[in-house]
Amino acid sequence: MKNDIKNKLFVIKIGGNVIDDEKNLSSFLQSFASIRVPKILVHGGGKLATKLAEQLGIVQQMIDGRRITDAETLKIVTMVYAGYINKNIVAQLQANGCNAVGLSGADGNAIIAHKRIHPNIDYGFVGDIDTINFDFLQNLLQQNIAIVQSPITVDASGQLLNTNADTIAQEIAKAMSKWYDVELIYSFEKNGVLLDINDETSVIPTIDTKSYQILKQENKIFAGMIPKLDNAFAALQSGVKKVIIGKAEDLQNLIKNKTGTTIIQ
Amino acid sequence: MKNDIKNKLFVIKIGGNVIDDEKNLSSFLQSFASIRVPKILVHGGGKLATKLAEQLGIVQQMIDGRRITDAETLKIVTMVYAGYINKNIVAQLQANGCNAVGLSGADGNAIIAHKRIHPNIDYGFVGDIDTINFDFLQNLLQQNIAIVQSPITVDASGQLLNTNADTIAQEIAKAMSKWYDVELIYSFEKNGVLLDINDETSVIPTIDTKSYQILKQENKIFAGMIPKLDNAFAALQSGVKKVIIGKAEDLQNLIKNKTGTTIIQ
Repeated sequence: MKNDIKNKLFVIKIGGNVIDDEKNLSSFLQSFASIRVPKILVHGGGKLATKLAEQLGIVQQMIDGRRITDAETLKIVTMVYAGYINKNIVAQLQANGCNAVGLSGADGNAIIAHKRIHPNIDYGFVGDIDTINFDFLQNLLQQNIAIVQSPITVDASGQLLNTNADTIAQEIAKAMSKWYDVELIYSFEKNGVLLDINDETSVIPTIDTKSYQILKQENKIFAGMIPKLDNAFAALQSGVKKVIIGKAEDLQNLIKNKTGTTIIQ
Repeated sequence: MKNDIKNKLFVIKIGGNVIDDEKNLSSFLQSFASIRVPKILVHGGGKLATKLAEQLGIVQQMIDGRRITDAETLKIVTMVYAGYINKNIVAQLQANGCNAVGLSGADGNAIIAHKRIHPNIDYGFVGDIDTINFDFLQNLLQQNIAIVQSPITVDASGQLLNTNADTIAQEIAKAMSKWYDVELIYSFEKNGVLLDINDETSVIPTIDTKSYQILKQENKIFAGMIPKLDNAFAALQSGVKKVIIGKAEDLQNLIKNKTGTTIIQ
């Protein structure tokens, strides 16, 4: 029997464009710190890793438009994502009165992954997620500690791996749904899912399974948004209660469902 | 009334020379992973940060033989110490079956510090420790999680700070002594405190307050060792049960008191 009374949990993905802008990041973290329910922040990388690779003369390999994580690139993303960005976010949250712990997937075996296997492309040290350690994350949340998750995971042999932050947010949200009412928020540079990609006021407030089919048939969804929405519906089918897509600067209103696009089943 | 039955806790500082040697580090971490009582590993930096600074053309400022942590250097040590080294140590411990969490001082407010105030020298972003968050560290240890502490701390305003790893080990050992029988181990490249600095077989097995005075009067202690020993005695006076100084490669014997120098009151 399912327990109807669950605690609410926010899993919030913050986009790279916010991380790159010191002022935006600081204001976002102030909003995040003021959320009074359990919360997990998942961050990507922004431009800092690319910049550092350039400075060190490490050529970024791209195959079919995908970045390849070779050994040198893994070193850089581990330093930048799990070190510099993660620790600065945690420090800023602490300064805003929000107790937080920054994690890689290796810490407490939070996220175990395996090196991506692909018939044609060697992605290098890229990880696809196997398990999320619910008990460890829940223990932190129960101590009223916010979790700041970097996009670095680990395999069973102790190999660190670079993993997509959107996917991490989704997998954490799904895993935590067993015991929490999870709202998964993707915060990025746009106001939400737009009917007209060039019109920021054309936000679709709510999308459900039925309206999504109609919008797709009518070609009203921007192609780049379709994988994100497909993932959102997959998350809902795995128990996530709501997925919200909207502007990072509007976090306070996003969590209240006042702005952005809310995706429900 | 003091509780006589306390659990044992090892606080082990690992020197930079071990971190720089992949094979030595791997063997050290295997030994560390096999310790069956609560344990905290404190690591410094090794040569990787200096190398990265050189590659990026960041000139390391030295004043009176002390390295100054300017903003660029802080960025580098945060990336290298709290990111690359910390996460690789945690990943290797996990692969050896030892659950571990890597921390900066900002994580869980583990170590709060303040920017060093000095009448003549501006050390830059160097932190002197104010408090160790016993409750947070104990909660992790009680979950059978080993703590891997990097030498990055934080002040109340969210400013990350670079802090000496020997001092961190000492302050953690002192803070944890209230509830644990703490053995503080400084593992480095020598066999222990030597009577003759050029003779690795001249290890002094035990030093207590009385014999230390005599050894100092007879000029039998190498000058470079005196601050370390003074700190060791200060730790003992603050409740630490034993301080052991010896070779990292010998960790298994050090924790059994079979090699190295044991310092007691």
